[in-house]
Amino acid sequence: MSTPFEQLNTPALLLDVPRMQRNIERLQARMNRLNVRLRPHVKTSKCLPVIERQLAAGASGVTVSTLKEAEHCFAAGIRDVLYAVAMAPGRLPQALALQNRGCRLAVLTDSVQGAQAIVDFARAQGAQFEVWIEVDSDGHRSGLPAAAPALLEVATLLHQGGMAIAGVLTHAGSSYELSEPLALQRLAEQERRECVLAAERLRAAGLPCPGVSIGSTPTALSAQNLDGVTEVRAGVYVFFDLVMLNVGVCQPEDLALSVLATVIGHQLDKGWVITDAGWMAMSRDRGTQRQQRDFAYGQVCTAAGEWIEGALLHSANQEHGIVTVAGVENRLLLERFPVGHRLRITPNHACATGAQFPFYSAVNAQGEVEQWGRLYGW
Amino acid sequence: MSTPFEQLNTPALLLDVPRMQRNIERLQARMNRLNVRLRPHVKTSKCLPVIERQLAAGASGVTVSTLKEAEHCFAAGIRDVLYAVAMAPGRLPQALALQNRGCRLAVLTDSVQGAQAIVDFARAQGAQFEVWIEVDSDGHRSGLPAAAPALLEVATLLHQGGMAIAGVLTHAGSSYELSEPLALQRLAEQERRECVLAAERLRAAGLPCPGVSIGSTPTALSAQNLDGVTEVRAGVYVFFDLVMLNVGVCQPEDLALSVLATVIGHQLDKGWVITDAGWMAMSRDRGTQRQQRDFAYGQVCTAAGEWIEGALLHSANQEHGIVTVAGVENRLLLERFPVGHRLRITPNHACATGAQFPFYSAVNAQGEVEQWGRLYGW
Repeated sequence: MSTPFEQLNTPALLLDVPRMQRNIERLQARMNRLNVRLRPHVKTSKCLPVIERQLAAGASGVTVSTLKEAEHCFAAGIRDVLYAVAMAPGRLPQALALQNRGCRLAVLTDSVQGAQAIVDFARAQGAQFEVWIEVDSDGHRSGLPAAAPALLEVATLLHQGGMAIAGVLTHAGSSYELSEPLALQRLAEQERRECVLAAERLRAAGLPCPGVSIGSTPTALSAQNLDGVTEVRAGVYVFFDLVMLNVGVCQPEDLALSVLATVIGHQLDKGWVITDAGWMAMSRDRGTQRQQRDFAYGQVCTAAGEWIEGALLHSANQEHGIVTVAGVENRLLLERFPVGHRLRITPNHACATGAQFPFYSAVNAQGEVEQWGRLYGW
Repeated sequence: MSTPFEQLNTPALLLDVPRMQRNIERLQARMNRLNVRLRPHVKTSKCLPVIERQLAAGASGVTVSTLKEAEHCFAAGIRDVLYAVAMAPGRLPQALALQNRGCRLAVLTDSVQGAQAIVDFARAQGAQFEVWIEVDSDGHRSGLPAAAPALLEVATLLHQGGMAIAGVLTHAGSSYELSEPLALQRLAEQERRECVLAAERLRAAGLPCPGVSIGSTPTALSAQNLDGVTEVRAGVYVFFDLVMLNVGVCQPEDLALSVLATVIGHQLDKGWVITDAGWMAMSRDRGTQRQQRDFAYGQVCTAAGEWIEGALLHSANQEHGIVTVAGVENRLLLERFPVGHRLRITPNHACATGAQFPFYSAVNAQGEVEQWGRLYGW
C-alpha cells in the first residue's frame, strides 16, 4: 500500500529506508572485518521488512526481547532465534511449543532458580533447551559476574540437567551513558574480556561453552578487537536516535526514524508552536535529559528532514506537542509555521518512539511511502 | 475469552472492574449533584467496554483525542462525539465523512488560521461543522484567553462562515501540578469563571454560545459550583493513577489499573529484584518525579494487589524492570520474591501505561478475567 507523502495522516512514523540500509551495511561490514557474526536485536524495529534487510545484508539469526517477537520471526521463516531476556518459568511451555514446531530457540538464564526451573520443566517434558548464561560485564543490569561462583553452579546445573549450554552472553548497557570514543573502546574491551573470561572458566571446568555473545550498539561500533567472541548483538544501530548521537556513534544524517507532525496552533506570547505529536507519538522517553545535549522530546526538522537549529519539541501532552524555536521572534512563528504546516521530529529513543505506532511509513529513495507493520504487545 | 488469573501471560495490563465501576459512579454522581452533563474523555481507556459503562452510568456522549477514537466510538453506535484537539486542516475530509455517515462530530479550534481553514473547507464542500472554541483558562497549553480580542474574531469568522458555534471549551491542565484541596478548588473555580466569561463575551456580541465545556479530573473532583457550565470532561478518573494519588483526588484503593509482572532474576548485592515489566510495559512516564512523592516507575504490590510499602519499580529498560524494596535485607529477597513470583505494579500515569498494551485483562468481582481490546494508533 503506497500513500503519497503529502497525504500521510499525522502523527506518522517515518522510516528513511536508504538511511536505514546504510546503517545496516555499516555495522555488518564492521562485524565482517572483526570476523564475528551479527545477530541483530529486533526489539528496535519489531518489523519484518527491516529484519529481512538485516538478514539479507549478512546477519546470522535474530535476537528477540519477547517470545511474541520469536513467534513473529519464526512465522516468517526465521529459525535461529535467541530470546535474550532471562527465562520466566511460566514461559517455558510456549518456548517448547516453538521449538517443537522447528524453531531453533535459545533461551537465557542468570540464576540457579532460573536454571533449575528450565531443567525441571525440560525433564518433565522429555525436552532439551539450548541455554545461554548471562554474564554481568558492567554492573548495568542482570547477569552473573564472570568470577562469581554461581556462574559455574548454573552451568553445571544446566549441563548435568541435560541442557545444551549455548554459551555466555553479556550486554554492556552502561555504554549508553558514555560519549567519549576512548571510554567506549575501553568499555567494549571490558565487555569482550569479561565475557571471554566467563567462557574460559566454563571450559576450564570441563563444561561446554561454544558461544560468546556480546553487544550493544555503542560497543559494537567501538570495539577494536573481538578475539574470542563468536557473535555480536545490537539493536538501535538500525535506526539510530538522539541518544546515540549524544553517545557519538552516529551523525545527524544517519537518523533514519522520525515522526511527521502537523501544526495545530500557537501561543505566540510564549513562543510556542503546537503540533499533533505529543507523548502518545514520541513516547515519554527523555533519554537525552542527562546527556551532554538535552533534546527535550525531540529535534524538530522540516518536513523534508532538514534540521531546524534551535527547534525542539519542548514539552508533550498526550496528543499535543509544544515546539519552541530559539532565535526566531515569536510573532514570526505564525508565518513560518502556520496551522497545517508539517514538521518532522527526530526522537530521543527509536525503540520507544517506534513502539507508539502500529506501522512505519517507510519512505524509499524515490520518496514513495509504504506501510510496514510493527509487532505490538506480548 | 476468559483466562484464569494464574495463567495470564506477563506483563499483563490488569483492570480491576469493580474499582473502575466505583470511580465511574463517583464522578457521575458528583456531576449529577452539580447539575452538569459528564462527557468522559475516552483517550484514557480507548476501550469500548469501559466507555459503555461510563455511558450506562449516565454520561452524555464522549470526548476523543483522535479521529480514530471518534471512528471507533461511532462504529459502536456512539453518535455524540467531541474531538477536543484543535482541528488540523488535513483532517477535515475525514471529519466530514464521519459527519456524513451520521456522527454528530463537533470539532475544536483556537485560532483564526484554524477557523478559516474550517470555514473554507466547509464552504467548498457545501457542509457545516459544529465548532467549539478553545479557551485558555490557566496558561497551561492551548486556547485563547477569555479576554483576548481574537476570541471574538474567531467566533465571528465561524459564525459568518456558516458554522454552528457549539460553545466555548477549556481544560485546566495545570491542575495536575497541584496537591492542596483549596488550591484545587480555586483552580476549578478559575476554570469555570474564565470559560463562562468567554461565553458571556460571545453572547454579548450577539454570537451564539450554547455550550460551556470545562474539565480535568482534578478540577472535576474539586469544583464546588459549576454555574453556567453545561458539561464537564474528564478522563483519568475512570482508572486513577499515582499522579492523581499525589494530586489528592483518589485513594490507593481507587487505583483500578496495574501491570502484572513476573520476577525473572535478582542482583542481591544491589538489592534488586528484576521483573519482566520494563518501560515497554509501564511506559516511560515519570509523572510523579516532581510531585510530593516520587514513585519512580510505579508502586509494587502483591499479585493480589496489596501495596508493599517501600517497594518501587526503581528503574526500567525495555523488557526489564528493577524493583527495590526498602527495609528488606537483600539476602531475603530471593526467598520472598523468587524467580517466577508475580507482582502487580501500579503506574504513574494510566493513560500512558494503558497505551503500551493491545488489551486489558479485565478482572471482575469474582476474579474472572476477560480480554478487553484497546485502540492503538491514529
